Amino acid sequence: MSETAPPQSEREAPAPEETAAPEEGYEVPSEFIFSVEEALGEGRVAAVEELVQPLHPADLADLLEYITQEERLLLIDIVGKTMDSEVLAELAPSVREEVIDQLGPRDFARILSDLDSDDAVEIFEDLDEEAQNRLLSALPRAYRQLLEESLTFPEDSAGRLMQRELVAVPAAWTVGQTIDFMRAAEGLPDDFYDLFVVNPKHRPVGVIPLSRVLRSRRPMRLSEIMDTEMKPIPLQMDQEEVAYTFRQYHLVSAPVVDEAGRLVGTITVDDVVDVIDEEAEDDLVKLSGLGEIDLYSATLDTTKARFPWLVVNLLTAVLASLVIGLFEGTIEQLVALAVLMPIVASMGGNAGTQTLTVAVRAIAMKDLTAANALRFIWKELLVGSSNGVLFAILSGIVAWLWFSDPALGLVIAIAMIVNLIVAGLSGTLIPLGLERIGVDPAIASSVFLTTVTDVVGFFVFLGLAALVLL
Amino acid sequence: MSETAPPQSEREAPAPEETAAPEEGYEVPSEFIFSVEEALGEGRVAAVEELVQPLHPADLADLLEYITQEERLLLIDIVGKTMDSEVLAELAPSVREEVIDQLGPRDFARILSDLDSDDAVEIFEDLDEEAQNRLLSALPRAYRQLLEESLTFPEDSAGRLMQRELVAVPAAWTVGQTIDFMRAAEGLPDDFYDLFVVNPKHRPVGVIPLSRVLRSRRPMRLSEIMDTEMKPIPLQMDQEEVAYTFRQYHLVSAPVVDEAGRLVGTITVDDVVDVIDEEAEDDLVKLSGLGEIDLYSATLDTTKARFPWLVVNLLTAVLASLVIGLFEGTIEQLVALAVLMPIVASMGGNAGTQTLTVAVRAIAMKDLTAANALRFIWKELLVGSSNGVLFAILSGIVAWLWFSDPALGLVIAIAMIVNLIVAGLSGTLIPLGLERIGVDPAIASSVFLTTVTDVVGFFVFLGLAALVLL
Repeated sequence: MSETAPPQSEREAPAPEETAAPEEGYEVPSEFIFSVEEALGEGRVAAVEELVQPLHPADLADLLEYITQEERLLLIDIVGKTMDSEVLAELAPSVREEVIDQLGPRDFARILSDLDSDDAVEIFEDLDEEAQNRLLSALPRAYRQLLEESLTFPEDSAGRLMQRELVAVPAAWTVGQTIDFMRAAEGLPDDFYDLFVVNPKHRPVGVIPLSRVLRSRRPMRLSEIMDTEMKPIPLQMDQEEVAYTFRQYHLVSAPVVDEAGRLVGTITVDDVVDVIDEEAEDDLVKLSGLGEIDLYSATLDTTKARFPWLVVNLLTAVLASLVIGLFEGTIEQLVALAVLMPIVASMGGNAGTQTLTVAVRAIAMKDLTAANALRFIWKELLVGSSNGVLFAILSGIVAWLWFSDPALGLVIAIAMIVNLIVAGLSGTLIPLGLERIGVDPAIASSVFLTTVTDVVGFFVFLGLAALVLL
Repeated sequence: MSETAPPQSEREAPAPEETAAPEEGYEVPSEFIFSVEEALGEGRVAAVEELVQPLHPADLADLLEYITQEERLLLIDIVGKTMDSEVLAELAPSVREEVIDQLGPRDFARILSDLDSDDAVEIFEDLDEEAQNRLLSALPRAYRQLLEESLTFPEDSAGRLMQRELVAVPAAWTVGQTIDFMRAAEGLPDDFYDLFVVNPKHRPVGVIPLSRVLRSRRPMRLSEIMDTEMKPIPLQMDQEEVAYTFRQYHLVSAPVVDEAGRLVGTITVDDVVDVIDEEAEDDLVKLSGLGEIDLYSATLDTTKARFPWLVVNLLTAVLASLVIGLFEGTIEQLVALAVLMPIVASMGGNAGTQTLTVAVRAIAMKDLTAANALRFIWKELLVGSSNGVLFAILSGIVAWLWFSDPALGLVIAIAMIVNLIVAGLSGTLIPLGLERIGVDPAIASSVFLTTVTDVVGFFVFLGLAALVLL
């Protein structure tokens, strides 16, 4: 290995081209998509190839998502043979399925075996069983075993998220020895950020950021520069927990260990970014009662996915109507009640949703735990009471002036206070209760909450009116 | 520099201790928090120190958030002098303010100047002007200038997010020269993942992952191993756009450039993870009409933050009531209408919210653009119609059986179809329209949507009833 001083010839080297920063952002511009669609429509294959060739795999994936199904099939016929394997990893599941069908099993197998093991598993696990079997027979044996083993780990676990490719070295090695090893070794991952130091049982004992390896002198031992504070991730850990660990400790990569504590893989932060996006989307999806957010799935699938939540909502709406039905006689005598009653219910629903959103998010981010739950409930009770008083005054005045009836104003004011306090309490107790019994609070809290605020809102308002006004 | 073979003595080196993976996750257990609270309450300072000393800064920050205000002040008195500067960066803003007050300007200045520039800016920008000035005078001059310059960049821009500490090297250097430089240089960042290659004008021309530097032989020139495909981030780029760029291209770090294209800083993925969390929270906050999610802010602040949205909701609820008021006569004649009318409005609101959530998220993730907007609207129209027909049948049957009046069932069925189609259209057109005129669709879509579905729901149902039933 040469240790001669490098030539001092910066000036003579050809100046590499500079990459200019974009005016706006980096997304694929709509005009570009329209040009590709035009070229596809007119069958200009060479023009399509020229347009698409410089795209980053992630941008090509976006392009495939943006265009119509017909255009997609045409484009795959043109670029499928030469397409970077990462394009597949970037596609939304429903679009990916179409692309895989169009590619055929042979091209698909070639693309899949090019991918890092974590991306390959992610794509493979989404296929139906028939497609999985067809594909397995087209894959090289070693790769097939690896895929099959990955699928034995629970869904959404660290085992599915990890990649097998990593660099593990013994603690007694020196920096120089390590660098020489890395220069000579075959089959290391493309890019990696940390070295894992293992003991003879192949258990991780330390981690060294690559920048520290580079900055240390060759005779230095790894055991002297490694961090022994690490956060090993068990194979079975849920991906939500993995994301929490990365976020909490600002990790760039982490070792994954099996039950015996042996190093079996690594998770890198780019996979965790995807998980964080997924989990955030999950909260949104569940709070708004969507089955999924897949912009590209078929209309029928979307309709089906949203149907169950709407059925539940219909049932709770009927429940609220039953409560109103109890007071038909009251409403008949004073129709102003029918006019005003949605105000009380709607304010309760909205105030409760505010509290609920904070609670669900805080539980997901582990900011709300047994240690501070009581203080949180107490605070939300105070917020509910304060807003209750404010909106009691406002709505009381509105009702009084509108129907020239101070007693009606008083009734709506009292109902408002009661319902906003109930909203604050339900917004905290419902998600905390669901969490306690092991149900994801995001998924069911919203229904329970609006049922409570509707029922209480209508009942208190109409009941008080029946007592006071008639 | 020694190039001798390293001693082969793995067996004789003392075996470093292994770090065991946790049974559950890594969060601070509630029992631990209770022990700290107990020790604080009983004034056992040594016990508190012993408990808190091994905590990771992020976990100490969590502990400070979980406990009460009084306990917090006690704990800061105990650990403030020795506290790791990163604890401050991890705190929620309202808790951080308390901690800073308790620390006093001198300790605070010491902690701040220990931080990487991006973390320091993030903390500094949240302070009020008086606190900022007091602090500036306690800081070293160079550091003060750096802070002041950072604050000239727009809020939430790449300029605020970046750190100044980075490693830039000329393209003509060899790997060996670069490694020698890094071993000798002072003032490099603690950890870094990529080398930036610059030309004589200090503009970035390439990027090299450290793993590639380590795996290349010393005489290799950087220009031969660098990636020229880079995504330079302009100083002014919004952090949402930065997060998109990292997510889209799976970046670990990116160069930040000024208007002349010169390299001025770097953004790393751990900062972007925070931005992604923030943006996800932002969507939730805005869709549910919260002013902010700060679990630890004072009750009064929380009440104030939520008040505006509830006022808007009161106004829209009154608007809906005005629509009902138009049909007072109709309701007086057929009180069943008052019982059933919330069902139509509620179903419209929920179906619309489902569509809205998909649209808002898809716009934020740049999955929904001019290129596919029409297709998305068309699909949601179909989904709305399909669900409209299904729920028209269900609610029609309920109304018919309940009030033994087939005509009433027909009226609610027609109103349901109309309202669910309107919900599907509003759920797409409102956010797309707001986006087009430059308003964040997350913030105002929800109000507009429920106003539309309430008004249309009540109007169509009661109007049809007036025409058909009386």
